[in-house]
Amino acid sequence: MDKPTESMLIDFYEFTMAHGYFDSPERDRIVYFDLFFRSVPNEGGYAIMAGLESVVEYIENLRFSDSDIEYLRNRNMFKEEFLEYLRNFRFEGDLYAVPEGTVIFPNEPILTVRATAVEAQLLETFLLMAINHQSLIATKASRIKYAAGDRIVIEMGARRAHGASSANLGARAAYIGGADKTSNTLSDRLYDIPASGTMAHSWIQMFENEYEAFKRYAELYPTMSTFLVDTYDTLRSGVPNAIKVIKDVLKPKGVTSYAIRIDSGDLTYLAKEARKMLDEAGLPECKIVASNALDEYLIRALLSQTAPIDVFGVGERLITAKSDPVFGGVYKLTAIEEEGTIVPKIKISDNPDKITTPHFKKLYRIYDKTHHACADLLTVHDETIDESQPLTLFDPTHTWKRQTFHRYTVKNLLRPIFQKGELVYDLPDVESIRKHRQEEMDSLWEEVKRFDYPHQYYVDLSEKLWNIKHDLIKKHTMKE
Amino acid sequence: MDKPTESMLIDFYEFTMAHGYFDSPERDRIVYFDLFFRSVPNEGGYAIMAGLESVVEYIENLRFSDSDIEYLRNRNMFKEEFLEYLRNFRFEGDLYAVPEGTVIFPNEPILTVRATAVEAQLLETFLLMAINHQSLIATKASRIKYAAGDRIVIEMGARRAHGASSANLGARAAYIGGADKTSNTLSDRLYDIPASGTMAHSWIQMFENEYEAFKRYAELYPTMSTFLVDTYDTLRSGVPNAIKVIKDVLKPKGVTSYAIRIDSGDLTYLAKEARKMLDEAGLPECKIVASNALDEYLIRALLSQTAPIDVFGVGERLITAKSDPVFGGVYKLTAIEEEGTIVPKIKISDNPDKITTPHFKKLYRIYDKTHHACADLLTVHDETIDESQPLTLFDPTHTWKRQTFHRYTVKNLLRPIFQKGELVYDLPDVESIRKHRQEEMDSLWEEVKRFDYPHQYYVDLSEKLWNIKHDLIKKHTMKE
Repeated sequence: MDKPTESMLIDFYEFTMAHGYFDSPERDRIVYFDLFFRSVPNEGGYAIMAGLESVVEYIENLRFSDSDIEYLRNRNMFKEEFLEYLRNFRFEGDLYAVPEGTVIFPNEPILTVRATAVEAQLLETFLLMAINHQSLIATKASRIKYAAGDRIVIEMGARRAHGASSANLGARAAYIGGADKTSNTLSDRLYDIPASGTMAHSWIQMFENEYEAFKRYAELYPTMSTFLVDTYDTLRSGVPNAIKVIKDVLKPKGVTSYAIRIDSGDLTYLAKEARKMLDEAGLPECKIVASNALDEYLIRALLSQTAPIDVFGVGERLITAKSDPVFGGVYKLTAIEEEGTIVPKIKISDNPDKITTPHFKKLYRIYDKTHHACADLLTVHDETIDESQPLTLFDPTHTWKRQTFHRYTVKNLLRPIFQKGELVYDLPDVESIRKHRQEEMDSLWEEVKRFDYPHQYYVDLSEKLWNIKHDLIKKHTMKE
Repeated sequence: MDKPTESMLIDFYEFTMAHGYFDSPERDRIVYFDLFFRSVPNEGGYAIMAGLESVVEYIENLRFSDSDIEYLRNRNMFKEEFLEYLRNFRFEGDLYAVPEGTVIFPNEPILTVRATAVEAQLLETFLLMAINHQSLIATKASRIKYAAGDRIVIEMGARRAHGASSANLGARAAYIGGADKTSNTLSDRLYDIPASGTMAHSWIQMFENEYEAFKRYAELYPTMSTFLVDTYDTLRSGVPNAIKVIKDVLKPKGVTSYAIRIDSGDLTYLAKEARKMLDEAGLPECKIVASNALDEYLIRALLSQTAPIDVFGVGERLITAKSDPVFGGVYKLTAIEEEGTIVPKIKISDNPDKITTPHFKKLYRIYDKTHHACADLLTVHDETIDESQPLTLFDPTHTWKRQTFHRYTVKNLLRPIFQKGELVYDLPDVESIRKHRQEEMDSLWEEVKRFDYPHQYYVDLSEKLWNIKHDLIKKHTMKE
């Protein structure tokens, strides 16, 4: 018997629903689903899109094996015709998405699927998982990098990751978001994320004494020595031994690049004292690496106390996004096609924030004359914006709040990824994505990036879209 | 070029250290590493061991491909002899572990590796990741199941999981911990975790109206209908339509098993009102399923308000262990062999909680005459306990606190898993593991299981081990 395929990472209800659509007169009806999120983790002002490459790979490889089909058959609830359809399954729809590394905001489509209901439903679980996971980690990393400024950030959370994909794709997402390196060798092999690392406490314990351990390391890797100085006593043993080895082994070889790492204790105090000792020993070029349950808040605190740290190693709190480990992306029906016409659909809720924005849409970003992003605008799919004309936006709740742009540019953010099942998008390499993320971050006002009470970036609707939405709300609430 | 192997999920510093040991006179020296954790997530009183099956699979498949070797060669820091060693790598050491599903406590070895330093170091990253991740989720699930009592718990977090392994192995860990089902079809295929599911809001939206949507579902899956009732208005539309479809479609077919699901709003109020409506309609057998960001705290709150809920669907807060998403397992050197003699090793720290317990050890659990677990005892590997003799335990910090057991039984918890690289352990199936976890939970006093200020279960050292540890502390602190 052949093996289960990764394609089966599908919530079972997608199969029951897909089978239901398949077994109905509406089998071939085209539907539209938007993937969006309602709030930024940690009450942040922005998020970073990631996960699209995984989505593309999933869709390209979406096949059900004979044993997958047999499994479904044994559930005794699916018709043979449906199982036969699954056996030959290929995604034949369209998919639009915001590129990885792009800044994204709540309540805007970051991915749109146009396909049969069966296809759209089968994609739901994986699409949500990939975008939710990787955007979560990319966003967290961008906050950590923002706190660290121009200091180096090393992602080193593999041992606390939630499984292999969490470690590997988490390292990739962290790199997109702003981490500079990873500890995880496999993510270097799989995704070209630069992996690095030197020594753990066990290395120190394995030798007769700390000096001997440092010396052996320096002799073996003279140009890559980072001495872990907190195994016994950071200031009385670790730093003095590191200084001695640098002078005894590295200096004579002409090496000028080395570091110490502090992994426990009061990092501010220890870094300051160690800095003094290194400087007094004539080693101002020796860098200081700090690690131990760091995140953006702790890094900010360390730097506000002027801790002289050059490199931050960030583990469990980045790879799990510990402070808020859920990115709440959802996947909602926004329209169906009836005889070639797109009919917008809405989901009503008592909670106004949970009412969806209907229709097949475009997502425009508006840049002011300083090239800063100042608002996003959702329109119906067939609307265009003429940059030579003034553009008036209004708040979708308090509609009297209006702003008119005279000198501005717009960018259409949703790119075609699949068209009729064909991949039409060149997946950028991870370095380009990372560079794109940096440009995206540069396009944001600082007020959007700060951690405490960030400016709520505007996500507005065009007048046409606003009217369609409110007509649908009226229709639904009057009916009931 | 062949592909990267999963074996490369190794922090890069394991390679630099392994190469250092390999390139030294101590190449073949045998070392001992313990895997243990220092505190239970959420300040709980116990944890549930999980992840061993993944560890076994990893070690059984631990190989480096030609392209893995080539990658390392291109780093220009490893000697050819070491790369050749890796090319032929097979784990040839011993591994002991506590079986999956067992209750575990802080500061006791839940896994011990005896191997060359090179081997032990290469295993570190994956072992920590697998045990940390899966024990985290199993522990979280056991808390959720504890709160839910004899009600059904369905794990449905795939869409918020941190990648595919987080979804798949997370579902398995949740099942071990006490969840009854999963939404994720792939974890059923891979690990035999029963997958189930019915309908999402999109199903309701796809049809002309809610009644029609329920009716179509009931006709297709008469014996498996759970109607999602909160798409438009739970009490004015959803529940009445569900009642009507049960009477129109299911009752005439003689079906007696069905449910409604509430996924938003005030779950207590809605469940109570829905229960009344169902009972008044003569459907007391209709079950109520509740979901929406639930965890052990919310379930406890719902039940304390006597919400008549029969089934809990638990998503993001279980699969990410949201309330505390890090299980802090560490992997520390505890001994080395010198000419056949085991020499205990310790890691000193200013923080007394971070001082390791040295030596190759045994882990005994002491049961009182009511068959409740009342303490764990760490001993040196060659100590045995004679159950016919009284056993006196003492607090390792406040050594005057003593307790003597007269009628008791002991269990040796660390089982041999690998011996000289050979797997000597029969991996139990997941149902047996789940049953074992239930028996383990039954062996705990309620005081250990409660969420708030649980009893701190005793983990003590034998007198022999205590003396070795304190002699080593004295030796190290006098030296400095």
